[in-house]
Amino acid sequence: MRRKKIPVAVLGATGGVGRRMVQLLADHPWFEVTAVTASDRSAGLRYGTAVGGSLASWCPAEVAELELQRSEPGLEPVLVFSALDASVAGEIETGFAIHGHCVVSNARNHRLDPGVPLLVPEVNPDHLALLRVQKSGDGALVTNPNCSTIGLALVLKPLWDAFGIDSVSVVTLQAISGAGLTGVHALDIQDNVVPFIEGEEEKIRRELPKILGKLGGGNVEPASINVSAACNRVPVLDGHTECVSVALGTDAPIEEVREAWESFRGVPQHLKLPTAPDRPVHYAGTSHGPQPRSHRGLEGGMAVSVGRLRPDAVLDYQFVTVSHNMIRGAAGGSILCAELLVAGEHVPDCLTSAVPEVVPGT
Amino acid sequence: MRRKKIPVAVLGATGGVGRRMVQLLADHPWFEVTAVTASDRSAGLRYGTAVGGSLASWCPAEVAELELQRSEPGLEPVLVFSALDASVAGEIETGFAIHGHCVVSNARNHRLDPGVPLLVPEVNPDHLALLRVQKSGDGALVTNPNCSTIGLALVLKPLWDAFGIDSVSVVTLQAISGAGLTGVHALDIQDNVVPFIEGEEEKIRRELPKILGKLGGGNVEPASINVSAACNRVPVLDGHTECVSVALGTDAPIEEVREAWESFRGVPQHLKLPTAPDRPVHYAGTSHGPQPRSHRGLEGGMAVSVGRLRPDAVLDYQFVTVSHNMIRGAAGGSILCAELLVAGEHVPDCLTSAVPEVVPGT
Amino acid sequence: MRRKKIPVAVLGATGGVGRRMVQLLADHPWFEVTAVTASDRSAGLRYGTAVGGSLASWCPAEVAELELQRSEPGLEPVLVFSALDASVAGEIETGFAIHGHCVVSNARNHRLDPGVPLLVPEVNPDHLALLRVQKSGDGALVTNPNCSTIGLALVLKPLWDAFGIDSVSVVTLQAISGAGLTGVHALDIQDNVVPFIEGEEEKIRRELPKILGKLGGGNVEPASINVSAACNRVPVLDGHTECVSVALGTDAPIEEVREAWESFRGVPQHLKLPTAPDRPVHYAGTSHGPQPRSHRGLEGGMAVSVGRLRPDAVLDYQFVTVSHNMIRGAAGGSILCAELLVAGEHVPDCLTSAVPEVVPGT
Amino acid sequence: MRRKKIPVAVLGATGGVGRRMVQLLADHPWFEVTAVTASDRSAGLRYGTAVGGSLASWCPAEVAELELQRSEPGLEPVLVFSALDASVAGEIETGFAIHGHCVVSNARNHRLDPGVPLLVPEVNPDHLALLRVQKSGDGALVTNPNCSTIGLALVLKPLWDAFGIDSVSVVTLQAISGAGLTGVHALDIQDNVVPFIEGEEEKIRRELPKILGKLGGGNVEPASINVSAACNRVPVLDGHTECVSVALGTDAPIEEVREAWESFRGVPQHLKLPTAPDRPVHYAGTSHGPQPRSHRGLEGGMAVSVGRLRPDAVLDYQFVTVSHNMIRGAAGGSILCAELLVAGEHVPDCLTSAVPEVVPGT
Repeated sequence: MRRKKIPVAVLGATGGVGRRMVQLLADHPWFEVTAVTASDRSAGLRYGTAVGGSLASWCPAEVAELELQRSEPGLEPVLVFSALDASVAGEIETGFAIHGHCVVSNARNHRLDPGVPLLVPEVNPDHLALLRVQKSGDGALVTNPNCSTIGLALVLKPLWDAFGIDSVSVVTLQAISGAGLTGVHALDIQDNVVPFIEGEEEKIRRELPKILGKLGGGNVEPASINVSAACNRVPVLDGHTECVSVALGTDAPIEEVREAWESFRGVPQHLKLPTAPDRPVHYAGTSHGPQPRSHRGLEGGMAVSVGRLRPDAVLDYQFVTVSHNMIRGAAGGSILCAELLVAGEHVPDCLTSAVPEVVPGT
Repeated sequence: MRRKKIPVAVLGATGGVGRRMVQLLADHPWFEVTAVTASDRSAGLRYGTAVGGSLASWCPAEVAELELQRSEPGLEPVLVFSALDASVAGEIETGFAIHGHCVVSNARNHRLDPGVPLLVPEVNPDHLALLRVQKSGDGALVTNPNCSTIGLALVLKPLWDAFGIDSVSVVTLQAISGAGLTGVHALDIQDNVVPFIEGEEEKIRRELPKILGKLGGGNVEPASINVSAACNRVPVLDGHTECVSVALGTDAPIEEVREAWESFRGVPQHLKLPTAPDRPVHYAGTSHGPQPRSHRGLEGGMAVSVGRLRPDAVLDYQFVTVSHNMIRGAAGGSILCAELLVAGEHVPDCLTSAVPEVVPGT
Repeated sequence: MRRKKIPVAVLGATGGVGRRMVQLLADHPWFEVTAVTASDRSAGLRYGTAVGGSLASWCPAEVAELELQRSEPGLEPVLVFSALDASVAGEIETGFAIHGHCVVSNARNHRLDPGVPLLVPEVNPDHLALLRVQKSGDGALVTNPNCSTIGLALVLKPLWDAFGIDSVSVVTLQAISGAGLTGVHALDIQDNVVPFIEGEEEKIRRELPKILGKLGGGNVEPASINVSAACNRVPVLDGHTECVSVALGTDAPIEEVREAWESFRGVPQHLKLPTAPDRPVHYAGTSHGPQPRSHRGLEGGMAVSVGRLRPDAVLDYQFVTVSHNMIRGAAGGSILCAELLVAGEHVPDCLTSAVPEVVPGT
Repeated sequence: MRRKKIPVAVLGATGGVGRRMVQLLADHPWFEVTAVTASDRSAGLRYGTAVGGSLASWCPAEVAELELQRSEPGLEPVLVFSALDASVAGEIETGFAIHGHCVVSNARNHRLDPGVPLLVPEVNPDHLALLRVQKSGDGALVTNPNCSTIGLALVLKPLWDAFGIDSVSVVTLQAISGAGLTGVHALDIQDNVVPFIEGEEEKIRRELPKILGKLGGGNVEPASINVSAACNRVPVLDGHTECVSVALGTDAPIEEVREAWESFRGVPQHLKLPTAPDRPVHYAGTSHGPQPRSHRGLEGGMAVSVGRLRPDAVLDYQFVTVSHNMIRGAAGGSILCAELLVAGEHVPDCLTSAVPEVVPGT
């Protein structure tokens, strides 16, 4: 007998991240997209019409047939993914949570709210305990970090646990897709680098300490790390490359740093969540290091690559990391959060009734 | 009466840097290309034939007619620019110097030799005094730093003089042309970043301290600066972008750092050398900072742009700099070195006879 | 004594074509930009502020200081360049002409109007005689063809005159800049070709016959040529490449076709107009033909390159042509039209008083 | 019980096409790569080492472990795929065939040999009957057309059958990968179009008539079609775009042309060959037509897209087609040829013993 799947909604389903969510949720073993929303301008259109016929390749036929709804509470699915633009996401997501929805958001608006988990499932699954004290009415609100922060958090977590980290300095080379479907004009980026991304450096500086922070007393105490960030847009479609220098808390031989990455596994791996990569961090042993075109697709885009580990003359070590900004850094990351929500230790009340039907072992 | 120009040779004239030298030397007020050399394979061809007819736009007709010679001493011009590949440049340049030529080289081979000036004319013109003790037979050998180091040296020099520098950490986003005409395959860089450039990081770490070093006792004492470098190739034709963090030797208010750049002038500016920019460093006051496509051509590609100066959470300040790797960082930089040689305080003996004819004020 | 220049206005001066006009008019010997206009949203801003500080490199300081005005008649200059968007250009240009301005427009709106010259100065300078019958109040209205049509008209004109043309089939590979500053999203064109440009194929099919048409009875009889066009956008910044097949009216040996191009000169060359190239058409004799990056800048972007002439199995001959869409195909083309207006045989009444002051020989 | 697979060798397995063959043969239901060859320089290396560790993603572990052999007869597999460079493929392939191998080649050398099928399995499967008269010793030699010809042949075949074709004029916009891993330098193609590809136009003109030709008397009579081709390289990684004009043999309403494509199926579809697409030709109904980035991957890269069908002012119809040059146009096309060889009507003698084991229904 085929088990019934958990219905989910995608808010802002016509944007770049929303489309990726729809694509990655096709054939998902637990979730099924039964509602999609967009701005008032597009509401009423069929989803397939709104995103354009030529894109049918990534869009399941059932979802293409769905009528776009307004982004307002009252949708049938309890579980709601938000790919809304930050200009509107804040209030809408709050509204959904108050009305009993469990919202997993990719938007920046609530990431730093005290009661809201800023979740990377391999890194801080315990932060979901915040939901017990979260004041979101009958619902729940969980956020996914910024696309350039997620990959960084994944490669720093094993070092943080093993050696501690005093300082981290990161220079990013970020893909165009991170700015949304229409965020970068071709004349601005072809044969060019733009050494500035609005708000991006602050996101890294503020989100990283929260992600690595310690839960206590219904709150997250941010990790005490000096974080320096310089963000660049480069002419790459997908995949953020980051050059990282770290000062560790204790001496660490280079082989132990590498071993920390190789052996790193988290709760999603132990629970064998459907979207979890087998290994969250892969070390690319080649001299040229990981590169966006060859490495962004590792384990379906859910694994992060790291390479070129070497001593640093100013801090302790330098390395390069590449992650898929649209999959691990956005749509796939959000889906993994939702999987942890339904299958982990901290199932929000609003979701409990849905879980037993689909998740093995519950 | 038209003054007679100084004849010059370009060694390795068919490569990317050699072509730029020929282009920039067209209509030069002091120099005239009268000899060009290439590998044995191309020797005997007309230069215009070897570089391809469609490129006539950048190549003066007289130079196109020159027959390519082998890269061996005995060329008529005393002043010789070397754009040779590093695989052969070392011995050839030594040979030319021994035979009485004044060699201005863009190759890496002799840059760190104790008696050889590693010259950025605005930064360390006094290093030319090394020529008095240099053991290069009757000739002289002067080198131009690596393309990613020159721009960096120019923006650090004013800070070094005003505040001292303890540490500098640089992440580069380097243009394709820096690897030579055939150095990067299209399939390797399109829609990609390559976070590794052979030997480049070491060049920055070793050349920068020598450039900023102190002359004494016939030697250069390297500056005591911790230098960290991470080098990336990006899909940009020309123009290296560098994200820099510095720890200064003394406290410096942000406006004084900016003022140090704005007021910076060097010997080439005072001598009004033909290829010298009016201002070696320009501050780009816009929020998006300097970018390769819009800023590489500043003052004919000879000025460096800097922008996005801001406090850094790990070191003291962060900023972005852009310079034209083929002009200021290679061909144009070499030409400026030669101009300083003939018009400055340290004219090598082998050049003295040529100088009075063309240089005003001598 | 310095002659007084003719004041000119640029309508729509903040867009891509408008900026190029300002750039190309800097240091123009006859014209001086004294007024710039933009949409109501930008009116009141200083021009330099509106276009962004980092672009000062291409914008003369005097123009940067000008206050943007609304695009309404009453501007001081009689001579007005229109780089307005087609969505608003039609009525505004008509208004300016009615109020006595001489409008040289790059917009598509009036190109096919019976009394309006569709001018390529080397091709159909006699079409300016239409101005005598044009009903534009006290003013005059002249248009510049579409960017992909101008280059084509220039290379077809010598063949048309020498051999006649029955059919022409053109496939374009057009640059991003042709769509305006914000016309193409990076995600739509990177690593891609878009084989469709709204309205472009029809423009070529309708404009070319008018340009090559015969003046008679106060009208232009379109040339009787079958024109087939397929237009593609490719990831190139500037420079349209066009693959052309032609069926000629009479037999023509291949060397005569080439000779027709090489010897082609027009009225702008005979009048030595300031923006006219020495030779409107250059034959690129190399096997690889003309290419946008190497050939778009020929003669300051005002000359068209043609190459790879060869017999065609379906029509008679095939060849490739490259022209700079922003210079010859838009801003520079318009300026050349204006030069012909003031220095040619058909000076409109509204301009006559201004001419004698600046144009030599009048 | 798992059936035993047919062992196959890939000659030239380290090049771009060879890698794609290895990738596409991973998990193939009938074939198993048990031997790989390369130039003498690489012979003896493990395959995984030769192609670089970072590429493990596309290369099955068992193949990575294989030792590269020289490209000489005596390899164990009877069935041999050749991805050799044309500079050496001719003699080597002949040698393999003489020694009893069945060679499926992607190289150009033998394509026009009278007894050698130039095979597109959906288009001319009957041409395999040539093998009965082919003089290749005990073996057999079958060729795959040029990458830009295969897609064209697939979209023309339904029109050829239904209406006849008098003339076809094609302008290609070809991807970089078509030139091999190192065939295009980044500085030659970034921000550029190269309107020439060595030998490409002649390949289209000569191969297309043979593919559509009629088998008779142990020979193929080329189809009598005027073929005009103009080939361009564009900055696209994978996927050839082609703008096509055709003059049909009879009148054909536009809806019948489209219907001919939509209903087109061939022998591979009827035999349900493992690599065959469900529909060889897909019509892209959107106004912007098929594009390389969105359409090259259709049906795993084995289906061709066509769109923008419209009347043509010079010939009868114009349209645009996109196909994956590395999959349908090379590696995947060759594999489909081999599938037809083992499962179709014309199994070469050298293969007969291998077939019954794996192919259902035989």
